[in-house]
Amino acid sequence: MTGSGTTLDDYTDRYAQRVRGMTASEIRALFAVASRPEVVSLAGGAPYVSALPLDAVGEMLGRLALDHGATTLQYGIGQGTLELRERICEVMALSGIDGDLGASPEDVVVTVGGQQALDLVARLFLDPGDVVIAEGPTYVGALGAFQAAQAEVVHVAMDDDGLIPEALEAAITQVAAAGKRAKFLYTIPTYQNPAGVTLSEPRRERVLEICERAGLLVVEDDPYGQLGFEGDAPAPLRARRRDGVFYLSTFSKTFAPGFRVGWVLAPHAVREKLVIASEAQILCPSAYAQAAVTAYLTSMPWREQLKSYREIYRDRRDALLDSLTQLMPEGSHWTRPAGGLFVWATLPDGLDAKAMVPRALSARVAYVPGTGFYADGDGTANLRLNFSFSAPDRIREGVRRLASVVEQELSMRSVFGAVHRGGAPDDPVTLLDVAEAGPPPQPESGR
Amino acid sequence: MTGSGTTLDDYTDRYAQRVRGMTASEIRALFAVASRPEVVSLAGGAPYVSALPLDAVGEMLGRLALDHGATTLQYGIGQGTLELRERICEVMALSGIDGDLGASPEDVVVTVGGQQALDLVARLFLDPGDVVIAEGPTYVGALGAFQAAQAEVVHVAMDDDGLIPEALEAAITQVAAAGKRAKFLYTIPTYQNPAGVTLSEPRRERVLEICERAGLLVVEDDPYGQLGFEGDAPAPLRARRRDGVFYLSTFSKTFAPGFRVGWVLAPHAVREKLVIASEAQILCPSAYAQAAVTAYLTSMPWREQLKSYREIYRDRRDALLDSLTQLMPEGSHWTRPAGGLFVWATLPDGLDAKAMVPRALSARVAYVPGTGFYADGDGTANLRLNFSFSAPDRIREGVRRLASVVEQELSMRSVFGAVHRGGAPDDPVTLLDVAEAGPPPQPESGR
Repeated sequence: MTGSGTTLDDYTDRYAQRVRGMTASEIRALFAVASRPEVVSLAGGAPYVSALPLDAVGEMLGRLALDHGATTLQYGIGQGTLELRERICEVMALSGIDGDLGASPEDVVVTVGGQQALDLVARLFLDPGDVVIAEGPTYVGALGAFQAAQAEVVHVAMDDDGLIPEALEAAITQVAAAGKRAKFLYTIPTYQNPAGVTLSEPRRERVLEICERAGLLVVEDDPYGQLGFEGDAPAPLRARRRDGVFYLSTFSKTFAPGFRVGWVLAPHAVREKLVIASEAQILCPSAYAQAAVTAYLTSMPWREQLKSYREIYRDRRDALLDSLTQLMPEGSHWTRPAGGLFVWATLPDGLDAKAMVPRALSARVAYVPGTGFYADGDGTANLRLNFSFSAPDRIREGVRRLASVVEQELSMRSVFGAVHRGGAPDDPVTLLDVAEAGPPPQPESGR
Repeated sequence: MTGSGTTLDDYTDRYAQRVRGMTASEIRALFAVASRPEVVSLAGGAPYVSALPLDAVGEMLGRLALDHGATTLQYGIGQGTLELRERICEVMALSGIDGDLGASPEDVVVTVGGQQALDLVARLFLDPGDVVIAEGPTYVGALGAFQAAQAEVVHVAMDDDGLIPEALEAAITQVAAAGKRAKFLYTIPTYQNPAGVTLSEPRRERVLEICERAGLLVVEDDPYGQLGFEGDAPAPLRARRRDGVFYLSTFSKTFAPGFRVGWVLAPHAVREKLVIASEAQILCPSAYAQAAVTAYLTSMPWREQLKSYREIYRDRRDALLDSLTQLMPEGSHWTRPAGGLFVWATLPDGLDAKAMVPRALSARVAYVPGTGFYADGDGTANLRLNFSFSAPDRIREGVRRLASVVEQELSMRSVFGAVHRGGAPDDPVTLLDVAEAGPPPQPESGR
């Protein structure tokens, strides 16, 4: 384990157990560079919020204080406002999660983005040493939350149809054989982050059956489900089961991440405990942010906006895929997402995506190396490429730069043999800032 | 332990250890009643946000999206924006926590209100079974955060000059003698919640010395320090020490709670771990909320507003104290806060404040019973009365109703002997919603 072992830290012997291993990534420092305007960032998971009608949104936000300040500027209740929970149920009903399946405002808990939803589920179910089964690769923030609960993550491989059911069965068997307890399957079935693949229709039922048979809860994370470019995605897992599935989502990708509003639809018996856990953590979600999302869903043409996000992202995905095809050296390959924000690429044999980061940044292109998306050090040959934030021309320029860095790595390899590899993988949680929130996005000149 | 032992809950055997004891209070249900307009609420900890210039605030909030939407609606970094952290340092410098004492934007972590600040400190330092020393009574939300970390709270008594140093020394000795490890002193030295008392000038140095000698960190929670009615409060503990003190505060009482913006000023060595822990929990604080607070501190006369809050609250405190003096039956007593939001009252001998809640609500007055502010079941004779939210006339009417309920309890006692007591105290965290965030405030007709 790399780390800052020599740092003066008077507090070391006072920390809780769960703090061990919380070390900052050296990559984080590198990424300070990535926020410079001359760098094309294919890192981050930022939606293109400049596509929002900012004048109308601004007008709406101003009125929330002017007309309703006594409530929007005040404390609220821990579960979140009933108004927003009702709107959330309407949103979920669009993908088939409706009242017939027991989805009700009473069982929705509003959270600080999807991240707090994950953290609450982790707090509720994970004791130190418990196992979470998750796709490999998976969302870096989920790894952070599971690690904070001192749980162990066992990865299950995916192919172009998503999670492989046989691999899931094998993982469950392996965990049981090791005498450990798997508490839930954590899955992003639709337009997966970072892999960009989608669990196929026939596999959805299979996965649910496997989990039921094994007595495994399912934590379904669905931030991207409404961002499909080629028709609707298969219905969420929660739309197929009344019980046993936690459904997590967020308005960060369908509206804007700046308000930090997400939610959990929890099994009824669990919902109250989620609220109590959330209160201990944040007291209550922001009344103003909740009012903003409620007003957006009530008074603005949000489905039109979603359509506009989809069109913008489809163009950008196409720009990314086309230029990867044109420019990347032989031996590289990548996924072809039907929605969402990310492409998962694999470098030619023997190249190390993390070791390559400094060279890429020198060449003014940023990406997130693959190791951050695994709990076990896998992913050295991988990189995650974001296509939601940068304009198509910038994306093409970014791929041009990236391809030339990869070419250089390949020629170094042919001259010197194996190229330098970085040390052991960083603790995944330390990549969180880089991979999702940062680097702070710069205004795009290209649009 | 009272609780919902007979509830059908398929998930019971899957929960993490830390979930045990998370049961909802029966009081919470009662308090749904307290949000009705006919009830005078002396419960809650809501500031009087209607005193804000809502037109100017609304205008400011609208512009944040219109002029800066590309950043305010976007993700930010886990630590919080540099702009806000710089303003926070200016705010702290007003109470003597300045650069000479090592206070720098680099060591500030922006949080989701003061509650997340508490929870982060708890996560960083508390293993199951560790001890926190805290005033008795203390902030119910702190108890919730410490309990979620499975820590034990040992209370230290206060008098009118705040925490009693000798009692602190005794508590430290007692914890050590029990072979347990106290990790920190949690204290609200100024205008304490719920007691309303302030740690005197001479005691501040004493308390710091005792903690230093015992190798105990200090977690200083200071949400109310700028809300003094009788001149400035004694300087915070952090203004007297460079190291060993975590300083926590929030804009919930000085601006508005609806944005959920608080902060920790942490010792340098610890700050990075706080950021990593916060990222695992919420990814990043709301960019929009941070921009709102930054704009408020930059472009609006916030010190004038603070003066206005102080004047309003002083009038309301006076209304509360005067009517308590005039109306409460003999044998009751209460504190006389020089600032903040709360008065702590004690009922005549033998009365039980929690058992009295249903009768008080029938008489259309609400308060928070004292047991919620103790980890150990103490506080049965106590109630916390809030004076920040309701207008003076409403406060007087509330005390009139409260006094008559107490009179009735006393006459019941003289007829039937000891009055009915409730069951064992509820788990403190379950009172959080009631005590701080809820019941949802109603517009005041009286003002």
